[in-house]
Amino acid sequence: MRDEFALIHLLTQYRPSPPPSVEVDVGDDAAVVHPLNRSLVITSDTMIETVHFLPETMNPADIGWKLAAANISDIAAMGGLPRYGVVSLSVPRHWEMNALVDLYRGMYDLADRFGLVIVGGDTVKAPHDLTVTLTVIGEVEGGQALKRSAAREGDVVFLTGTVGDSSAGLHVLLNGNDGTKKRFSDLIRAHRRPIPQVAAGRLLLSLNAGAAANDISDGLAQECWEIAEASGVRIVLEKDRIPLSDALVDYASQTGYDPYEWALYGGEDFQLVGCVPEAEFARLEQTAHNEGVTLYRIGWTEQGKPAVEWVTDQGRTLLERRGYNHFTDG
Amino acid sequence: MRDEFALIHLLTQYRPSPPPSVEVDVGDDAAVVHPLNRSLVITSDTMIETVHFLPETMNPADIGWKLAAANISDIAAMGGLPRYGVVSLSVPRHWEMNALVDLYRGMYDLADRFGLVIVGGDTVKAPHDLTVTLTVIGEVEGGQALKRSAAREGDVVFLTGTVGDSSAGLHVLLNGNDGTKKRFSDLIRAHRRPIPQVAAGRLLLSLNAGAAANDISDGLAQECWEIAEASGVRIVLEKDRIPLSDALVDYASQTGYDPYEWALYGGEDFQLVGCVPEAEFARLEQTAHNEGVTLYRIGWTEQGKPAVEWVTDQGRTLLERRGYNHFTDG
Repeated sequence: MRDEFALIHLLTQYRPSPPPSVEVDVGDDAAVVHPLNRSLVITSDTMIETVHFLPETMNPADIGWKLAAANISDIAAMGGLPRYGVVSLSVPRHWEMNALVDLYRGMYDLADRFGLVIVGGDTVKAPHDLTVTLTVIGEVEGGQALKRSAAREGDVVFLTGTVGDSSAGLHVLLNGNDGTKKRFSDLIRAHRRPIPQVAAGRLLLSLNAGAAANDISDGLAQECWEIAEASGVRIVLEKDRIPLSDALVDYASQTGYDPYEWALYGGEDFQLVGCVPEAEFARLEQTAHNEGVTLYRIGWTEQGKPAVEWVTDQGRTLLERRGYNHFTDG
Repeated sequence: MRDEFALIHLLTQYRPSPPPSVEVDVGDDAAVVHPLNRSLVITSDTMIETVHFLPETMNPADIGWKLAAANISDIAAMGGLPRYGVVSLSVPRHWEMNALVDLYRGMYDLADRFGLVIVGGDTVKAPHDLTVTLTVIGEVEGGQALKRSAAREGDVVFLTGTVGDSSAGLHVLLNGNDGTKKRFSDLIRAHRRPIPQVAAGRLLLSLNAGAAANDISDGLAQECWEIAEASGVRIVLEKDRIPLSDALVDYASQTGYDPYEWALYGGEDFQLVGCVPEAEFARLEQTAHNEGVTLYRIGWTEQGKPAVEWVTDQGRTLLERRGYNHFTDG
């Protein structure tokens, strides 16, 4: 390629048109966007070749999609709306230009569905592995963000959808034959093309029910530990209430795996796990239902040393504080 | 290290206290900051081990400082004020914890001088090389950002300080003996600890003189080419007006190098190069002088095919459109 400018031109060819709120777009020292009337929510996520994806698990467009999903999901977990993003791409020699264009296209595809505009970034060469960082700025009503420290004793703990599908999908990709991959394409899709729960986050915030929330990026157990520690409560999860997809149950049964290992420790599902006072839950559940969002009650909070417990037929046990933590795994 | 939380705790131990405008700080899914009354300026820069620094050229604290400088400089080049940042760190096994803490400390040191608060980010493991991305959000008066497309025929072209020192400093670090390094410590400091020109950018904006500006991240020639192309003007630089430091001239003389190679193509000086109408320049220069900022007139703009020319005793020649472009070098 001629230089960085030619690269940027190619990478941005499928970029949707920016709205009028973008004052200075891609191509200057920095982007300038119009003021917002609400607080800003800022988050950043990185994906690295060999650590977060392999050629056999993710197509380039999936990588871009998933990076956008991870960032949008963090904004959703604060109850915010994603607005502006900048991407930083570090490219080694072995990546072809059309693969990079596909990566950006996947990122634009998901971003566009949620009103997120990519307004700039940086491209540099990398010595070994492709690394891509997306930083997203969202907006939220001042003082109303859904903090993980907001859970209180006597809350209901709930999920916005099934968990474990993404990591089961990764397992299919790494271990399944063609027939298995075809049969469990929903799990593969959950791994490659997760959908962040922005509408659910907005709903939790709008009902002003004092909800705490985290998105499931590192696994249900880990996210609940974070809420428990930040809020100073004990979280108790009921095994028989955890929502599992039929595909996950089928695949676990076929392979002899415990589906709850994926559900608790799998990560990257990008559902929200939240806590609201018991007195608020019925109203919340009904309003959510009316708007097409299902909330699954999965447990409760109580007084005690911050921790996460697990209730089964055999009684209560402590859940390990581990998850899908790329930094310490592997 | 125990896990990512322990890592974050260690890395942020030297972080200055955040101001009250930080509503939700480091430690939740995303940071939340108070609304701004002006437009947002957003920029991102990445530094990678072996591409942007080597152990023998930069200490960890220098890397953090320089990454902050590169981002703040982009905000300065838009006439803005840096406000909030998020950092994404990818760490390979061979990096020691105290080196990472030093990197963050260097970043905090420079950020704090300019009112930039680091409010979050992401840490992941890297298979080979340390990669660190900083994204900075600044603010600027709506519609007044200093665009590189604002230069017009008949402008004065000016610089805010000497250029070439940073790349000459790199040359000292890679080639000099201990005596040379001691003698040319100012050049080494220019490479390791550059100071972004926020005050100069604010001044250019406040005088409302219709200035165009770029920061010198990729070399004076390259930055002038960008202004010329974005504005549709021809830029003519006068060799004998380019400000060179005494140290640069001495070091070039001692080593037999052409100091203008560093001045034109060296990069990472983080001075600003700007263009204002001839009728505005005297007022601008005087006001700048009163505020302790020196502006060096280095050339002019004229009608013609966008390009950058160089005037010497031998006449006019075209300057190459190349610079300190990490992506295509090496």
